[in-house]
Amino acid sequence: MNHSLSSDTICALSTAPGMGAIAVIRVSGKRALEIGSLVFSKSLEDVASHSAHFGRIRTSAGEIIDEVLITVLREGQSFTGEHTIEIACHGSQFIQQQILQLLLERGCRMAEPGEFTMRAFMNGRMDLSQAEAVADLIASESKRAHEVAMKQMRGGFSNELKDLREKLIHFASLVELELDFAEEDVEFADRTQLNQLIIEVLNYVQRLIQSFALGNVLKNGVPVAIVGAPNTGKSTLLNQLLGEERAIVSNIAGTTRDVIEETLNIDGILFRLIDTAGIREDAEAIEALGIERSHEKIKQAQLVLIMSDYSQTASDSEGHQSMNELEATAWSNRLTQQFPEKHFLVVGNKADLRATKDRAISGTFATAFLPISAKTGEGINELKKWLSDQVLGDFNTQTDTIVTNARHLDALHKTAESLEKAKWGLGTNVTGDFVAMDIRQAMFELGTITGDISTEDLLGNIFSKFCIGK
Amino acid sequence: MNHSLSSDTICALSTAPGMGAIAVIRVSGKRALEIGSLVFSKSLEDVASHSAHFGRIRTSAGEIIDEVLITVLREGQSFTGEHTIEIACHGSQFIQQQILQLLLERGCRMAEPGEFTMRAFMNGRMDLSQAEAVADLIASESKRAHEVAMKQMRGGFSNELKDLREKLIHFASLVELELDFAEEDVEFADRTQLNQLIIEVLNYVQRLIQSFALGNVLKNGVPVAIVGAPNTGKSTLLNQLLGEERAIVSNIAGTTRDVIEETLNIDGILFRLIDTAGIREDAEAIEALGIERSHEKIKQAQLVLIMSDYSQTASDSEGHQSMNELEATAWSNRLTQQFPEKHFLVVGNKADLRATKDRAISGTFATAFLPISAKTGEGINELKKWLSDQVLGDFNTQTDTIVTNARHLDALHKTAESLEKAKWGLGTNVTGDFVAMDIRQAMFELGTITGDISTEDLLGNIFSKFCIGK
Repeated sequence: MNHSLSSDTICALSTAPGMGAIAVIRVSGKRALEIGSLVFSKSLEDVASHSAHFGRIRTSAGEIIDEVLITVLREGQSFTGEHTIEIACHGSQFIQQQILQLLLERGCRMAEPGEFTMRAFMNGRMDLSQAEAVADLIASESKRAHEVAMKQMRGGFSNELKDLREKLIHFASLVELELDFAEEDVEFADRTQLNQLIIEVLNYVQRLIQSFALGNVLKNGVPVAIVGAPNTGKSTLLNQLLGEERAIVSNIAGTTRDVIEETLNIDGILFRLIDTAGIREDAEAIEALGIERSHEKIKQAQLVLIMSDYSQTASDSEGHQSMNELEATAWSNRLTQQFPEKHFLVVGNKADLRATKDRAISGTFATAFLPISAKTGEGINELKKWLSDQVLGDFNTQTDTIVTNARHLDALHKTAESLEKAKWGLGTNVTGDFVAMDIRQAMFELGTITGDISTEDLLGNIFSKFCIGK
Repeated sequence: MNHSLSSDTICALSTAPGMGAIAVIRVSGKRALEIGSLVFSKSLEDVASHSAHFGRIRTSAGEIIDEVLITVLREGQSFTGEHTIEIACHGSQFIQQQILQLLLERGCRMAEPGEFTMRAFMNGRMDLSQAEAVADLIASESKRAHEVAMKQMRGGFSNELKDLREKLIHFASLVELELDFAEEDVEFADRTQLNQLIIEVLNYVQRLIQSFALGNVLKNGVPVAIVGAPNTGKSTLLNQLLGEERAIVSNIAGTTRDVIEETLNIDGILFRLIDTAGIREDAEAIEALGIERSHEKIKQAQLVLIMSDYSQTASDSEGHQSMNELEATAWSNRLTQQFPEKHFLVVGNKADLRATKDRAISGTFATAFLPISAKTGEGINELKKWLSDQVLGDFNTQTDTIVTNARHLDALHKTAESLEKAKWGLGTNVTGDFVAMDIRQAMFELGTITGDISTEDLLGNIFSKFCIGK
């Protein structure tokens, strides 16, 4: 950002681009009320904050551009902390463009991506991790992703970090107390107690680091592959899983369905199905080429469902080559060795055609096994639970803090590194000043997350990833 | 519309679909403030109209969906005339969906397309032609289309119709005065004067009917074809025309450029270029196939530019077969006979290479001729003027009323028909009651435009073409 933050008044279309019934153009800055008054049929300079005004937008030549509703939010009471007006106009692209042009003529400049939120941060309306959560919140596509972003935006993560910082300050003070009296060779702080404290903090940071794996998939969706021989019912399973989803979504007219097309929302988690077109064709054979193609899908996936035919008769009666659960399990075992970081589930489909069945997820084999019937819906809830369990692990998205941001992960890694050094220092009885230096470094790294420590480059980099208008 | 208009409270996403920094959900109806209060962190029931409130939207389970700004517009002071709240939330599709779902749970129903505007009409906030202009305004892509829609929305057309109606009432009263004394064989109304009055009204209606040709192309864009032999410079002309346009549009970041791709905005009029991909290829030859393909384009066009090579040397020096202005004019003359309703202009390109030139549009030939240089830009302004003149004719979009709506055109045709009958009646001395009947019919037809006369079917049909949320 090369612009002077304090003096410019910025404007941008804040609603989604394209034609809508209405659109909202946001103006923020010292001159927002003045510039608003120049284009509007009424002066906004002395009106109360949080008041809405109906009137006309006119060009300097007097042509009416639109009849609009302007909401005024005064300095200190707006999102950015600056004087802000929100112009709700008719949603024609021509009108949007005309109004923006007019605002530019009257002294606004177009906002950079994320500049409204950046100003909110600069003006102390939120810390950096909260500001970053605004972008996540806007991009959230599922309940869990939304939950995590909302918690972060409302300061949940910041409060955890504040607690951490306090613990570290407490720790540092104990160490420095020792330091002050170092020459007298007095150890005020009990090193065992110090050691316990640093392990506690370190565990906490490690848990945050671990949560990123979850946070990342919550934010971006969990890639899932359904593989298996033809005629094992992959397509039927897909329809069974997608069917309910569609019914829910189509309840609300006017919301776009594109997003949902090839994704599944289970337990508030977004699962992205890899290459469902291929599944629909159901053309993969069990021979080399088929396995090859499955491997490509498996590589992209985090969770893999290996479909097998659990009926004892279907493969014969239909005259097709299928894959029974024993063959599938053998395959799964090989895959587990090859891809230890992925989760595999052998699904025994057509369980409704089998005389004796074992419904529960079975531990008899090296990999998990679940008998289902994609046709009747038997076992589908268990299947969904398996999918969501693999993702959530022992995290609770409502109560636990989940790290979703790669920048935060990086800072946490650096924090952990400094804490490890401090821990090592305590263990080896180095002098307190080295330990204190490591603790200060850890606090510095934590500070970059909330923006207590920040540089212009860092800020520019963070906010440039936002959409314009926010 | 099968829904009870008066009792239901409706909701919809009013901003463009998709992800944006913010989105606006509109709720209108008797229970808008009550339902709003049920989902919001603060009661909205007793707050002032035109006040904005920051707070949280929560599910009944207490989960926070979003932090939002709600603007309250009370009964009689809103667009619809009903209690209305506008919820400005974060622009995630998930959040939009969650809030709509919550509103539905609390007793709203999803609005039909155009239902907010329909309610504005039903509640007397605007007449029907004004309500229809709202849809045109939202769809307007050019200055002129916007101008016409804005004038209509602000009641310009309605006022013209009111004047017409008053003239007809005056006329009817004169005729009926005569009617009342018919048995006494007294002619109070001077038939010559009546005749003059009806001709005046009829001319007026005819002019409105004529304006539809303009209104229609302003609304939908004017189809233009550029045809001619290869090497006459079609591609260079296209770039010359599109070049400036692009520069203007790209000035405003964040506005989509797709719309402009193959269109030209000249003098506030949108021109749609037919098959510009073909022009870019410049692959058409003058032989049969080339002419054939040009004819396909000409059929779709309203204005046709026939490109010819006006340099005396270019066709020889480049070794390509080209088309000089005499050949082009001969072709144009044949086309004019074949398509009398279209406008043709022979463009003599490469005029910069010609020693003596005639810059003005020449009337020497049966069709118009204009020497230009697509390369240097000579004559381009004249070309643009020609394009805009053909469209506007003698209409002035700022002062004249332009009919843009096929339904209005239909009503005006029926009005004219009844007026013709009345005129015929006056001419043939039929009794006044027949004439009065025709006048009443004309007034009835005019009434359908403003919605003084309307049926539920008609309204359903009109508003179903709106987008949802308006």
